[in-house]
Amino acid sequence: GDTVFIADYLLERLAQLGVTQMFGVPGDFNLAFLDYVEDHPKINWVGNCNELNAAYAADGYARVKEGSIGVVTTTFGVGELSAMNGIAGAFSEQVPVLHIAGVPSTSQQKNKPMLHHTLGDGRFDAYFKASQQFTISQATLTDAASAGAEIDRILTDCVVTARPVYLMLPTDLVHTKIPAKRLRTPLNLDLPANDPDTEEFVLDEIMKLVDQANGDVVILVDACAIRHNVKSELADLLKKTGFPVYAAPMGKSVIPETYDRYGGIYIGSISRPEIKENVENAKLLLSVGGLKSDFNTGNFTYHTPTNRTIELHSDNTRVQFASYHGIGMKQLLPKLTARMQPLHLDASAISVPKFISPVPKEDNEIISHAWLWPRVGEFFRSKDVIIAETGTSSFGILETPLPGDAVFLSQILWGSIGWTIGSTLGAALAAREVGLKRTILFVGDGSTQVTVQELSVMMKMGVKPIIFLLNNRGYTVERFLHGQTAKYNDITNWRWTSLLTAFGGIEGETCQSYTVRTKTELDALLNTESFARADKIQFVEMIMEMHDAPKGLKAQAKLSGIPNKNISVGLNTDA
Amino acid sequence: GDTVFIADYLLERLAQLGVTQMFGVPGDFNLAFLDYVEDHPKINWVGNCNELNAAYAADGYARVKEGSIGVVTTTFGVGELSAMNGIAGAFSEQVPVLHIAGVPSTSQQKNKPMLHHTLGDGRFDAYFKASQQFTISQATLTDAASAGAEIDRILTDCVVTARPVYLMLPTDLVHTKIPAKRLRTPLNLDLPANDPDTEEFVLDEIMKLVDQANGDVVILVDACAIRHNVKSELADLLKKTGFPVYAAPMGKSVIPETYDRYGGIYIGSISRPEIKENVENAKLLLSVGGLKSDFNTGNFTYHTPTNRTIELHSDNTRVQFASYHGIGMKQLLPKLTARMQPLHLDASAISVPKFISPVPKEDNEIISHAWLWPRVGEFFRSKDVIIAETGTSSFGILETPLPGDAVFLSQILWGSIGWTIGSTLGAALAAREVGLKRTILFVGDGSTQVTVQELSVMMKMGVKPIIFLLNNRGYTVERFLHGQTAKYNDITNWRWTSLLTAFGGIEGETCQSYTVRTKTELDALLNTESFARADKIQFVEMIMEMHDAPKGLKAQAKLSGIPNKNISVGLNTDA
Ligand SMILES: Cc1ncc(C[n+]2csc(CCOP(=O)(O)OP(=O)(O)O)c2C)c(N)n1
Ligand SMILES: Cc1ncc(C[n+]2csc(CCOP(=O)(O)OP(=O)(O)O)c2C)c(N)n1
Ligand SMILES: [Mg+2]
Ligand SMILES: [Mg+2]
Repeated sequence: GDTVFIADYLLERLAQLGVTQMFGVPGDFNLAFLDYVEDHPKINWVGNCNELNAAYAADGYARVKEGSIGVVTTTFGVGELSAMNGIAGAFSEQVPVLHIAGVPSTSQQKNKPMLHHTLGDGRFDAYFKASQQFTISQATLTDAASAGAEIDRILTDCVVTARPVYLMLPTDLVHTKIPAKRLRTPLNLDLPANDPDTEEFVLDEIMKLVDQANGDVVILVDACAIRHNVKSELADLLKKTGFPVYAAPMGKSVIPETYDRYGGIYIGSISRPEIKENVENAKLLLSVGGLKSDFNTGNFTYHTPTNRTIELHSDNTRVQFASYHGIGMKQLLPKLTARMQPLHLDASAISVPKFISPVPKEDNEIISHAWLWPRVGEFFRSKDVIIAETGTSSFGILETPLPGDAVFLSQILWGSIGWTIGSTLGAALAAREVGLKRTILFVGDGSTQVTVQELSVMMKMGVKPIIFLLNNRGYTVERFLHGQTAKYNDITNWRWTSLLTAFGGIEGETCQSYTVRTKTELDALLNTESFARADKIQFVEMIMEMHDAPKGLKAQAKLSGIPNKNISVGLNTDA
Repeated sequence: GDTVFIADYLLERLAQLGVTQMFGVPGDFNLAFLDYVEDHPKINWVGNCNELNAAYAADGYARVKEGSIGVVTTTFGVGELSAMNGIAGAFSEQVPVLHIAGVPSTSQQKNKPMLHHTLGDGRFDAYFKASQQFTISQATLTDAASAGAEIDRILTDCVVTARPVYLMLPTDLVHTKIPAKRLRTPLNLDLPANDPDTEEFVLDEIMKLVDQANGDVVILVDACAIRHNVKSELADLLKKTGFPVYAAPMGKSVIPETYDRYGGIYIGSISRPEIKENVENAKLLLSVGGLKSDFNTGNFTYHTPTNRTIELHSDNTRVQFASYHGIGMKQLLPKLTARMQPLHLDASAISVPKFISPVPKEDNEIISHAWLWPRVGEFFRSKDVIIAETGTSSFGILETPLPGDAVFLSQILWGSIGWTIGSTLGAALAAREVGLKRTILFVGDGSTQVTVQELSVMMKMGVKPIIFLLNNRGYTVERFLHGQTAKYNDITNWRWTSLLTAFGGIEGETCQSYTVRTKTELDALLNTESFARADKIQFVEMIMEMHDAPKGLKAQAKLSGIPNKNISVGLNTDA
């Protein structure tokens, strides 16, 4: 029968999954493989500046290109370990990313010569062992016979669990041939089926509670509703029931924020009062894809009693105090919707506060957080991809309603600064493909310094994000948690508007940078059509106060109690 | 008795080890600790742009500040994993680095709330497990009772083994008090003693071979002679015997390259012919601190028969085919020297080729590798610290004789590109303290893109390296191994001379950048006294040919045989 090189087998599988971009950095243990990538008609090699940024880009790509995966290719040891934080972040935040490490040949793996990029003590499995901590499945290809099945196994796990997987690809196997036959059967990406009896029982239990609640049901959507792909099932449930719906920070934008039964962000004690009241006083709370991390719950301050809560997760369901393992929401939701449909009338009687955020009048020209976030809210447009970095940005953006079909990315659980510079690259590439429009990033000065070089790759790839840099001279989010005036929270100030040209851009032609110091200046810029059109990469340095922060961050800091000791002590952790 | 906060206990121990700089990035799990650092009279906090760069800086600092250690402090998960490649590199290359990770409180470690920076699944030990792969000892502080002893244990291991160690420092223990008493006893950093009977036997065995060789003994020094600190023992042996001495690439500069019995770099088949001949034909070869990695041995092409070889290592000795575990060179060397002293006359009869590298005449203006390396050799001065990045630089510099008291850093085993930008920061800080003078870096354009932001920290810290950037439009070293014209070996060109000012420098005042395109231009620059004085940070972009490489790299590529398949296949690996 016909055969195919293992490299091409892998690439073909990736193409089947809709992968069009591969991120990474070359190294002598992956160069042979990269020849195949370079020759592949459907997959483009994006050379990144470094491996961490590449992993972040793969993560951002996967988040925007729903249903596909992100791919990052690195070289043995030095490359793969550099990517590790990015991979761990994808694990934590449940993003499907394939990490391909080009490794020494199968015979070298056996003989263990003291190659460069080794630890010098013959342990060729150390990187594999480390990566086991941060990936859901791993494969180390050892021979032609099992290669195809191994590749299929981890790719399936990657998609089904929405978690990163790791593949060790030895230099010699790259051009070893295997039968092409498997490729004709697409990967089976079906989720494991819910056990029908259990599922039926769970549906009955839920409906009992719904009945008792007289239709006073509130839906709270969270991270895993995106990650495990139940957006449309959820939309259906909402449409057919009319239940009020709120989102946790990590669930922001899963439900169009313009939807008239959507009330905004619930974040425990630091929610807007009317939201807190409506969510916590509902007779029944149906949580979809909940992920109760500290920053996603207002430091564990949900007041949502378990006996009034139903939780739908990707692979289990909880009804009050009972857990039902193996009952996943993807299959459960449509059945639930069917049963609940008649409730529409009752539900629509429940009022939902409007989620709006008017621009406040302030009698000064300082670009304050209180003013900034509502103001940029007016700048957003349909089909924008909006990305907020960990820091004051990730707190500030939460209160800004986004356009209904906007996509929102943030990393609220993992919270690794610098992530957005990489993920913006990946997100912008994916956005181009899936018909989204502008990519708009809000990022702090401290975070930008972590991964700044990837701006150059954005220009190389011709993506045109608008990057709003919050220049507040350091790590402001940390100042609010600890060390308000400590020197370790200061950073050096850069000439931010020189960065794009230093990285090879041509000012006014391929890139444009701005500094804005006042409300009036920012306002004018946002109102400029040529700016809003985003037809080149744009970098906007916004001069802000060192000790200003969004309301949500201040509240979070207060909740943490005595700064320094109790930050995220997590008393109320039932997760 | 008197007590001390655990944070201060740790800092005091570091101060006792001569640590004056701590590298790292703040994060909310280490901020409480950083308060103590900021207040410490002897230890300065160097905030880095990111954790990988910080780890590299700690590595560079430790290499230059012999006898002390490097320290990098990161935050839980996101920070520590970002540093992992740097820590693994320190393991591989045997550099003593302490990695302090600020982690959640002891009660959080027990209750495992879903904190930010966790994997979301309650595994609080995942980062610890990963770091076990790349550190020689680890400690996770759990209570006051054991904290002091645990800190002492890993610090001792760090120094004695010259390897990185890992410390998990929970937020609450930072300000827990423990008795100060232990601090009054300095750490016992003595190496384990050699067993006297075995040692005596080994000395006899060695002397038997020396006698048979009629004094025709050649010494080959390598990496571990620096790492395990036998420079002065070695100098003594050389002085008292007059034996010819050569260095492996990783042993470059251990022996002053101006020493009249020093013959240059031995690197197997790609050595200069006279060096190859002298080393391989010696009746007896005494290898000190050998580390036989691919790039350190000309792809495993030593022709040095085991029955004519003695190998001294930090913790074992090999005489011909026999291994003597636990017999370390630090204690063995002085005894060997005492016994060999009478051989001085015989030894001095053996001729040693002069290790010189005259600047060739070329009838063009291109800055070629063949011309560059000898030319910069003339620029070097006493007490320079000279650093070469993996790439064409690390091959090119080998053939350049360095001043006798110069210090040379490279990462020939681990070979992680970008390492030098971080390590130059650490090295320059250490150089200032130990009375070394200029720090001079040679780095490729591709490598610089990996970690470029750390240039800004150099300026913040006021160190003044001279950075020679080899602009050859991409990954030239890789082109010679595989993919000569492949696109994946291209990189985007930056406006290199704008970088320092973009990162906040003031051109002509705090920094200076240059582009040189011709031999004449570079020559003139090198001859300019104000340039050579190095009184501000200077960045020299050198325009070079994409497909030019130093002789050593070309030879290595040829040895690797068919590019792509056989690179570093390692047939001859007895290591
Ligand atoms: C990789 C990594 N290192 C360190 C941290 C700790 N950390 C969290 S937020 C932050 C400061 C962010 O500062 P900046 O980007 O300037 O945002 P700001 O709050 O000032 O707007 C730091 C250092 C982290 N989250 N991730
Ligand atoms: C962290 C890391 N990623 C990838 C590699 C693979 N690699 C080795 S050398 C090299 C190219 C270096 O290029 P450059 O710095 O421009 O040096 P040149 O040879 O062109 O002078 C690469 C990508 C590596 N060694 N380390
Ligand atoms: Mg900031
Ligand atoms: Mg280059």
